[in-house]
Amino acid sequence: MKRENENVEFEETLDPDDWESMRKLGHKMLDDMMDYMKTVRERPVWQHVPERVKAHFSSPVPQQPQPPEEIYKEFVEKVLPYPMGNIHPRFWGWILGTGTVMGAFAELLAASMNTNTGGGANHIANHVEKQVIDWIKEMLGYPQSASGILTSGCSAANIIGLTVARNTKAGFDLRRKGLQRATQRMVLYASQEVHSSIQKAVELLGLGSEALRLLPINDYFQIDLETLKTSIKKDREDGYMPFCVVGAAGTTNTGSIDDLNALANLCQQENLWLHVDGAFGAWATIAPKAKNKVVGIEQADSLALDLHKWMYMPYEIGCILVRHEEQHRKAFSLTPDYLAHGEGRLGLTGGDLPWFSDYGFQLSRGFRALKAWMSLKEHGSRKYARIIQQNIDQALYLGELVNASPELELSAPVTLNVVCFRYVAPTMDNAELDELNKRIVIELQEQGVAVLSGTVIKGKYVLRAANTNHRSRREDFEVLVSEVMRIGKELTADRQP
Amino acid sequence: MKRENENVEFEETLDPDDWESMRKLGHKMLDDMMDYMKTVRERPVWQHVPERVKAHFSSPVPQQPQPPEEIYKEFVEKVLPYPMGNIHPRFWGWILGTGTVMGAFAELLAASMNTNTGGGANHIANHVEKQVIDWIKEMLGYPQSASGILTSGCSAANIIGLTVARNTKAGFDLRRKGLQRATQRMVLYASQEVHSSIQKAVELLGLGSEALRLLPINDYFQIDLETLKTSIKKDREDGYMPFCVVGAAGTTNTGSIDDLNALANLCQQENLWLHVDGAFGAWATIAPKAKNKVVGIEQADSLALDLHKWMYMPYEIGCILVRHEEQHRKAFSLTPDYLAHGEGRLGLTGGDLPWFSDYGFQLSRGFRALKAWMSLKEHGSRKYARIIQQNIDQALYLGELVNASPELELSAPVTLNVVCFRYVAPTMDNAELDELNKRIVIELQEQGVAVLSGTVIKGKYVLRAANTNHRSRREDFEVLVSEVMRIGKELTADRQP
Repeated sequence: MKRENENVEFEETLDPDDWESMRKLGHKMLDDMMDYMKTVRERPVWQHVPERVKAHFSSPVPQQPQPPEEIYKEFVEKVLPYPMGNIHPRFWGWILGTGTVMGAFAELLAASMNTNTGGGANHIANHVEKQVIDWIKEMLGYPQSASGILTSGCSAANIIGLTVARNTKAGFDLRRKGLQRATQRMVLYASQEVHSSIQKAVELLGLGSEALRLLPINDYFQIDLETLKTSIKKDREDGYMPFCVVGAAGTTNTGSIDDLNALANLCQQENLWLHVDGAFGAWATIAPKAKNKVVGIEQADSLALDLHKWMYMPYEIGCILVRHEEQHRKAFSLTPDYLAHGEGRLGLTGGDLPWFSDYGFQLSRGFRALKAWMSLKEHGSRKYARIIQQNIDQALYLGELVNASPELELSAPVTLNVVCFRYVAPTMDNAELDELNKRIVIELQEQGVAVLSGTVIKGKYVLRAANTNHRSRREDFEVLVSEVMRIGKELTADRQP
Repeated sequence: MKRENENVEFEETLDPDDWESMRKLGHKMLDDMMDYMKTVRERPVWQHVPERVKAHFSSPVPQQPQPPEEIYKEFVEKVLPYPMGNIHPRFWGWILGTGTVMGAFAELLAASMNTNTGGGANHIANHVEKQVIDWIKEMLGYPQSASGILTSGCSAANIIGLTVARNTKAGFDLRRKGLQRATQRMVLYASQEVHSSIQKAVELLGLGSEALRLLPINDYFQIDLETLKTSIKKDREDGYMPFCVVGAAGTTNTGSIDDLNALANLCQQENLWLHVDGAFGAWATIAPKAKNKVVGIEQADSLALDLHKWMYMPYEIGCILVRHEEQHRKAFSLTPDYLAHGEGRLGLTGGDLPWFSDYGFQLSRGFRALKAWMSLKEHGSRKYARIIQQNIDQALYLGELVNASPELELSAPVTLNVVCFRYVAPTMDNAELDELNKRIVIELQEQGVAVLSGTVIKGKYVLRAANTNHRSRREDFEVLVSEVMRIGKELTADRQP
């Protein structure tokens, strides 16, 4: 483009050379993405990436510019057809997110503004994020006086929550002096079913995975309270310093929810921190028929959760809430000269909100609050409540379908939205059944029918359907069951009596 | 919408009720965002958020749906006019990112696919991310055998790098046993000018900020090597265990770069880990006339950097590279039953790439690689090199303008892209000058002219322009200098002799 001031030497920019052709390309992308999301049901859930496509991604860094239209064509041919599949109505593997159209639009808006929501400062993104956090607290019945920050996900939220727990309970200035100055070994408790991100956080924080006591579960896959009490007592007698219990609101394996009320009472009696990992399960709080299962969650000292799983927002968005704002801030606030907070109401740093960087480990932060803000407005909390309940009802329905099929066996009670089951053939031993069910998971994926994941429950390999999918319908679960039956029968054809 | 199967009870979805009106809205958003980015130069860099707008963000969570068009209207009226300002050509506050049109488009595409790039698995996003990391290694001259992962930014990258350093150098199974089992206090070194995120990482990791020895700087704002050697020796004599040196490639205050070659040699001699925080400065490596300043960066054991600062990509995207893949993986890999990696080439988990979750603390991860992949193709590495060099040349030009103005004083040498200077009035003492310069920063912001930040250099409050802006032109720096002069004169009018 021509420059207004021709006597200034030529300077380059990354802005488009031709805004109008770039605009045209953007409109094409938008149309394609709408079609892509609208027609997802018509495609296989997942398909292999062909070797020739993989090979395409091994070329060296491009040195010269490539026309935007060509780059997009490459994206359409080589990237778009090979997603993980988690936006499809029959994707129930692990616990992934579905995303929405408005969520995707919001990402375009946020990246166009490209506002940094790290330091505080007087700009609107901070107010949007504060409102989103206030809304989350409101929906979950968590105290409005609590502090919070949006994170990349629940792993980061768990790290932040456990850092506040560790630093608050240490009894000395751990932030300054470090764990090595502690006189007693700090230990914490969770059930064997707790998510791996808790162990990773404990390791990151320098506590050592040995410090995380993984306790047995009861028949409902909840942490066994008697063992917990005994362990705390024994650890104290042995000179350890118990400081925290991690409650699970929705375990990954089975969707089970610890007795959070009992944990809250126990933690109060024992002066321990209660951290709840509510990655997806925290949202059971808003489901009319499930909220009784998570009672007590509002008593947590810190509560970690995701919005990219059960609130269906596009990646990445999680949240940590901390009951006592001061404890949260004390664990993370740090103000070097170049980040001096403004005084008064003047200038960009003269904002009247706390700085988000004082509540977590990110300094530069994008505007992830926008997709949450627009999404919650688009649907309203009541619709989210209905669809979360719908996912739970669908899981119960799948449980019924499994129970009604003699070849299928439910592997754990359906407490929430996770259904663990397996195909059984009477003539096979356990090792053979493990292999058979592994094969069924793979065949479902390979044939593009559905994506389940597998896990091990009580020593047995089982199929696992985790339903955080707003596109799923009952008929999808009917398809799942009949296809599992078909594949199971085909794979055991030579073993039929 | 009507359902195909009318005898199934009605199930809801978060998909649009009316795809066509949603599509129309998307096109409007896209047009508006193109205009917004194209016309940014015509607007003030920053403006206050009016109280009535702030007040708008205090309403309770919406319970009922709101039409998408209304939500967008609210966004246009209440959010869009009040950004932080960092996409404007005269924004040089802190070290923020400018973003690009293609980057914003890529966010739309990534969120529409909504692929989870956390676990490995056989889908294309993993290959895109691997290629982007390979490209980064190639551009920075870092060994291709190194491992890497894209992160939310450099804070997260520093956390990961220092975790690998800590765990590798501990000399025992720190991941399992924890820091409290160490017999010697682990300590590390950096200059006083190192970024605050290093301290935050050290605190998070349980090492304690006392363990971070912040050493004095030389005249070039680099870590003083003699003091470093003496400190390591003394710490060893005193029973501490030195394990790491953090080199800065581009300090926040002045853009200075430690003597990385010397640090690499010293670390090798002393058997210490060299972690380099190259948030923005790592990219000097590709600038023709600046790359000599960062020689040695390729010898780092771990290298943390951002792509949302000097590579101008929209938030959030950073990267950590680790020289020895095995050390990286050993610090983070963890595989519970529900994350079992697939065997062979079958099914979704049968991918042939490592799992990204084995190299960091996030499990769910979005597709942030896409914006990097598309951006690098759009411009090619050589154009990035030219524009980074352009930013450095512009900083030198600003330094010249400052030197040519008797009222202005350069506060530190211009090493890279950061210019620290202040307005001086001969009749004022230092305290008065501090107040005057604080006021100038605020006036520049309040009047919408430019955004600088302030910092303290050798006890004096100074103006700081950090140029990571692909939209800036030389004429913008001319405007800056003449406006600083105008404001300075106005503010000191009653003090003129």
